[in-house]
Amino acid sequence: MRQIESIREMQEWSAGQRLAGKRLALVPTMGYLHEGHLSLVDEARRRADLVAMSIFVNPTQFGPNEDFEKYPRDLPRDRALAESRGVDVLFVPAAAEMYPPGDQTAVTVAQLSRGLCGAFRPGHFRGVATVVAKLFLIAQPHVAVFGEKDYQQLKILQRMVRDLHMPVEVVGLPTLREKEGLAMSSRNAYLSEAERMEALNISRAIAAARDAAQSGERRTAALRERALAVLAEGKNTVVQYLEIVDAGTLEPAEVLDRPARLILAVYLNGKRLIDNGPL
Amino acid sequence: MRQIESIREMQEWSAGQRLAGKRLALVPTMGYLHEGHLSLVDEARRRADLVAMSIFVNPTQFGPNEDFEKYPRDLPRDRALAESRGVDVLFVPAAAEMYPPGDQTAVTVAQLSRGLCGAFRPGHFRGVATVVAKLFLIAQPHVAVFGEKDYQQLKILQRMVRDLHMPVEVVGLPTLREKEGLAMSSRNAYLSEAERMEALNISRAIAAARDAAQSGERRTAALRERALAVLAEGKNTVVQYLEIVDAGTLEPAEVLDRPARLILAVYLNGKRLIDNGPL
Repeated sequence: MRQIESIREMQEWSAGQRLAGKRLALVPTMGYLHEGHLSLVDEARRRADLVAMSIFVNPTQFGPNEDFEKYPRDLPRDRALAESRGVDVLFVPAAAEMYPPGDQTAVTVAQLSRGLCGAFRPGHFRGVATVVAKLFLIAQPHVAVFGEKDYQQLKILQRMVRDLHMPVEVVGLPTLREKEGLAMSSRNAYLSEAERMEALNISRAIAAARDAAQSGERRTAALRERALAVLAEGKNTVVQYLEIVDAGTLEPAEVLDRPARLILAVYLNGKRLIDNGPL
Repeated sequence: MRQIESIREMQEWSAGQRLAGKRLALVPTMGYLHEGHLSLVDEARRRADLVAMSIFVNPTQFGPNEDFEKYPRDLPRDRALAESRGVDVLFVPAAAEMYPPGDQTAVTVAQLSRGLCGAFRPGHFRGVATVVAKLFLIAQPHVAVFGEKDYQQLKILQRMVRDLHMPVEVVGLPTLREKEGLAMSSRNAYLSEAERMEALNISRAIAAARDAAQSGERRTAALRERALAVLAEGKNTVVQYLEIVDAGTLEPAEVLDRPARLILAVYLNGKRLIDNGPL
């Protein structure tokens, strides 16, 4: 596995491989890899000749009171995991090069960024769309693979690619979960054992709403109550939002008359966790 | 010369030529071509194997009370001119495909878009940066050539390319002028003969400031007065703005202690004209 830090070197590698007729995949990550990330690598390998993974903890997608400083990082471990899974190039750019002096360009995706996490993390999706646009323009992949865990992010990036006519296919893969149902996340490292137990309510809440929907309940207000009731059992859990939305536009859905998604964010002793699932 | 309307077909043409090792240039225009545009084609040809020209009157860069509807258009004439100058591909996309249903993605370049024309045309440079990002992602040029007539636009696009790491070189060429000095512009078609005469004051005003600078005047306030005095001679001319700015950052310059540019916009009987020149 080759490790590249320089943007120009990454661009030259991609341009050379494209000239040689190779199909390229990119798996963008913030590192601290878990099996969820590695399953994206497997899918990328199925879809391309060569797989690049980027590791970049992007400062512009964190708010001033968020966890940028303490976001977990372990490059030697990430490198070993990426190599063991067959990543061809690990791209680890420096923030000072990603955001050159005088940097002032942003990519925004308006309506999709407004609700859900966007309502509580102003500027977050602007940071995400901008950095992913940069990564796509640097790594020049034919296909990029993301997890559905950040479902709003996935929809925003698919919209960005379509609107700007980027020649990249953005693929989303179902969230990988621990055996008990907790969605895999680098931020799970923040949780104590007791918190990890209480966090199981999150996937149980989604399952409760799904079960009710499968039993015939069509009113999303009723489904939402089912999920909230499960979360209310956790005495350290505070719901930031829990919404049932159109799976494509992310607009609130009153009734389940089209593909819909339950999406939520909670604080567990101040630690923010997100999850979502189809209904 | 091949004419392409479909975005996919344009992307496939560019990808194929790139695979064949060709170097590609793009000359983005809004059509109604004049010798200024055609000189950009000549430069593009010097810098690349194949030259594409786009013609697209971009609706999102016009304000609600601006001249989008009446902007001059003449595709048959443009086609003949482009072909006579050796353009290889004329790309003429439809607005409905450039801005697909649900389109909501924008590219913004913050500080450089704030002053000068940006202060009087809110949203204009957001529209310009967004459409040029789309054109670059569709036509995939190695180099793109623009005129310095829209100097603020040129600086914004160079900044966008640098910040987003687009693998495109953005080249600016000096403004071409009529024999008497009037900057070539598709919008000159709006002018009567009398207005065209009065419009000569614009380049004379820039020349007056430049002459004073070459005679040793370093205070931009004094240079600005020289230029405004020339424009005041035209009784149908209303100055929208006239500023002397740092040629790189476009920030106001008090003294000529670095490369500077005089940039202005005037209304002549309600017809808006812009021009600029180095000091």
